Amino acid sequence: MADKVNRFREKCRLVHDLAEVQQLLDWDQQVVMPRKGAEQRGLQQAALAGVVHSKLTDPEMGELIADLKAAGGQDEDLKADLREAERAWSRAVKIPPELVAERAKACAMAQVAWEEAKEADDFARFRPHLERVLELTRETAAAIGTPNPYDALLEDYEPGMSEEALKAVFSQLREGLIPLLDRIQGAANKPAQEVLKRHFPAQAQERFGLQVVADMGFDGAAGRLDRSAHPFTSGTLADVRITTRYDEHFLNMALFGMIHEAGHALYEQGLDPKRFRDPSGQACSLGIHESQSRLWENLIGRSRPFWACYYPKLQSAFPGVLDDVDVETFYRSVNVCEPSLIRVEADEVTYNLHIILRFELESALLHRQLEAADLPEAWRAKMKAFLGIEPPTDREGVLQDIHWSAGLIGYFPTYALGNLFGAQFMETMRRDVPDLDRRLEAGELRVVKRWLNEYIHVHGRRYLAPELCEKVTGRPLSVQPALSYLQTKYGEIYGF
Amino acid sequence: MADKVNRFREKCRLVHDLAEVQQLLDWDQQVVMPRKGAEQRGLQQAALAGVVHSKLTDPEMGELIADLKAAGGQDEDLKADLREAERAWSRAVKIPPELVAERAKACAMAQVAWEEAKEADDFARFRPHLERVLELTRETAAAIGTPNPYDALLEDYEPGMSEEALKAVFSQLREGLIPLLDRIQGAANKPAQEVLKRHFPAQAQERFGLQVVADMGFDGAAGRLDRSAHPFTSGTLADVRITTRYDEHFLNMALFGMIHEAGHALYEQGLDPKRFRDPSGQACSLGIHESQSRLWENLIGRSRPFWACYYPKLQSAFPGVLDDVDVETFYRSVNVCEPSLIRVEADEVTYNLHIILRFELESALLHRQLEAADLPEAWRAKMKAFLGIEPPTDREGVLQDIHWSAGLIGYFPTYALGNLFGAQFMETMRRDVPDLDRRLEAGELRVVKRWLNEYIHVHGRRYLAPELCEKVTGRPLSVQPALSYLQTKYGEIYGF
Repeated sequence: MADKVNRFREKCRLVHDLAEVQQLLDWDQQVVMPRKGAEQRGLQQAALAGVVHSKLTDPEMGELIADLKAAGGQDEDLKADLREAERAWSRAVKIPPELVAERAKACAMAQVAWEEAKEADDFARFRPHLERVLELTRETAAAIGTPNPYDALLEDYEPGMSEEALKAVFSQLREGLIPLLDRIQGAANKPAQEVLKRHFPAQAQERFGLQVVADMGFDGAAGRLDRSAHPFTSGTLADVRITTRYDEHFLNMALFGMIHEAGHALYEQGLDPKRFRDPSGQACSLGIHESQSRLWENLIGRSRPFWACYYPKLQSAFPGVLDDVDVETFYRSVNVCEPSLIRVEADEVTYNLHIILRFELESALLHRQLEAADLPEAWRAKMKAFLGIEPPTDREGVLQDIHWSAGLIGYFPTYALGNLFGAQFMETMRRDVPDLDRRLEAGELRVVKRWLNEYIHVHGRRYLAPELCEKVTGRPLSVQPALSYLQTKYGEIYGF
Repeated sequence: MADKVNRFREKCRLVHDLAEVQQLLDWDQQVVMPRKGAEQRGLQQAALAGVVHSKLTDPEMGELIADLKAAGGQDEDLKADLREAERAWSRAVKIPPELVAERAKACAMAQVAWEEAKEADDFARFRPHLERVLELTRETAAAIGTPNPYDALLEDYEPGMSEEALKAVFSQLREGLIPLLDRIQGAANKPAQEVLKRHFPAQAQERFGLQVVADMGFDGAAGRLDRSAHPFTSGTLADVRITTRYDEHFLNMALFGMIHEAGHALYEQGLDPKRFRDPSGQACSLGIHESQSRLWENLIGRSRPFWACYYPKLQSAFPGVLDDVDVETFYRSVNVCEPSLIRVEADEVTYNLHIILRFELESALLHRQLEAADLPEAWRAKMKAFLGIEPPTDREGVLQDIHWSAGLIGYFPTYALGNLFGAQFMETMRRDVPDLDRRLEAGELRVVKRWLNEYIHVHGRRYLAPELCEKVTGRPLSVQPALSYLQTKYGEIYGF
């Protein structure tokens, strides 16, 4: 059996190493690749995808998993590895390669069509492509064979979660957020926005942001920071790269973007070095990943204790620019809440509603309860219901996100799950570290990193997200921590 | 048969695409990878090497090659593809995988030992590692099975060339160079070196260098320039990356380094886009590759017509620095000839002697005509004989180059071949473009690029290097063009 265990682990690790390469090629494409290199990069990625697919569907892998599971008696880690490897193997063998190829092709075409449709504000141009992607996505879900097709898709991003569970959680969340948003909108005392729109030279933004992420514990010898059109985090353990972009007339974009990506990066740098190449040694789920980035960005980076420490440093980083702004004014300015059309620019409160809207719509599309043709109208109606505003164009509405064109259905919910998991983890961290605020005021951001390292990062995927949440916080995922955090914080800022 | 041709081409192209990925990982490691990422990078490269090896030794590939060759009647391109694929396949199947692994391990250890030995100026520390590498290299050559083991090694870098042919060429070259060097050393009129050692800010060096390589025809949308410890060129066709390094007190390093690497890059960018993924569509050999870089660096970049155009631009690029230096003084300064200890810093004349020395020594080592223990002494003796100087330390002698520790035996000759091929191509180019010097004086560097594109680049590896040389220049490789170029140029500079 020891031989089979070794053989199993070796095969899994090989797939992991190749997946690291795939990710690196993507980083390269987004950050440094010369413009004309795209076609060759596509061929390289296709070659690697073929290799990885053949390793994932290798019959010997299926036999090893079956034999080892039948033998039983393994330790917790190996059991978790078998569970994760089995899910990956069974998905890979169930989806016919022709369907994978056809869906990839349809998505590539849909992304081009989406870009053109967005540019021209013409949903009709995108519609047939969306329909085709949905059709092939339904076929994919059917091949996987879960009773609810949405669950088959969700499993890829958030294993252990179900559409039913999401519906329950999101409806509670929505019911808590809409009245909160009403109270915020009714308040007279609005935070100033002008202070964030002064001139902040990119180089000084970079220097300040690098200082913050270093203080968080981001290891610069095991990672790097670059610029890219869309910020993201790439890599794992000892080579984790984050990107950002700078707007010299809007401080938030790079600053909170860097803290957000560094939150993802700390997770990857914090995995168990002995297990990070094993199936259950990698990060738990997209929702847990997002909990790390959002916790750092919002629960730490937009908190009063954080700015008590960092505001004087920020003022020195931009000499003269913020001399007339006190820390309280600044704190309130980075915590403004205001319904807006674009998800990626939304604040902590409304962001969740943007996600719930997308979840409800993609679910209805997948289950054929909504026709693609009726999507723009449904989008506007939900925006009105949730946020009280309607996009004047589809470009600022249904066409704003790339996800559906890329076949990413079941992905949006993980963003809101990140907020929920993050708030619930934070509640527990506050219990474990009673003087947390005092320590944040002293700039000891590493306290947060160490707690996350110990309770979240090092476990990797040993437990699925719902189980991890219970292990760490002592109870199942709940909307209460997020709602009470938001109610307290925004009640105090807006004075109700 | 058409089916088999397709299948054959598909398999070859897949190997090519994966080889591009291997090269990109190496570029990344040398240019942007965080320090701690080395171990993971090693695992990624090992995973890819395993995949590529299994594709290269795939029995179906052997059958396809045999069937297609037996069927015959193919066009020239397919014949060349079969020839190249057969060489790669047969090398891959002949060398036992255990030997490949053992040699790779021995080389990895030898490189570490070489670095330490060089640092400590202690050849004895390197000697056992060199012996081990030589032993495994002899075994590798024996597995390949050419009558002369050196030819088996050479074949990997310079297919179509033999040790016997190299001996003949290099002895003529040496016999021509040594008296030339004597006359140069006897001349009274030495070029000034001080002008090159003034202060040249790195940013201005980069800007000027980028202008020159753009004028040469380097396509910046299909490539990029970065800094690295050791300059190199990576990639092919639409993604070709060059690197350089800057010494603010020595103009030559970055300037001629960039022109050199851009010469390599133009070759890769100039391959046939329809054939670059096929076995005979890639660059011909290391010697032909080096002919491109050396032709640009020396025959163009160190020529009087080039500086007639670029010297005023250089003066403007470094305001005030070269005001007191006229173009003739500058031209002579970049063409100084002086025996020196270090190959990579050698001039056009002595560089070849450094290579011939290494060729003769590595040949003697491989054939057991020289013991590793006697190598330092043999090195000093040959330095004395060829260049009239002796290294005071092994660090400046036998320990200066990484190649032997990396198992690169049979590789050095390609550097000198590059000089010979380059001079011979240039002679033909001058015949085809009679007003070449006038056009260079006008800054029309693209004339050179277009000629090289048409006569060298587009052929890829359709012909092996000796055949390509004959096709392009109308006669076999000869030392005469290089010798007469050097005699004329240096006779004029040194006044004899």
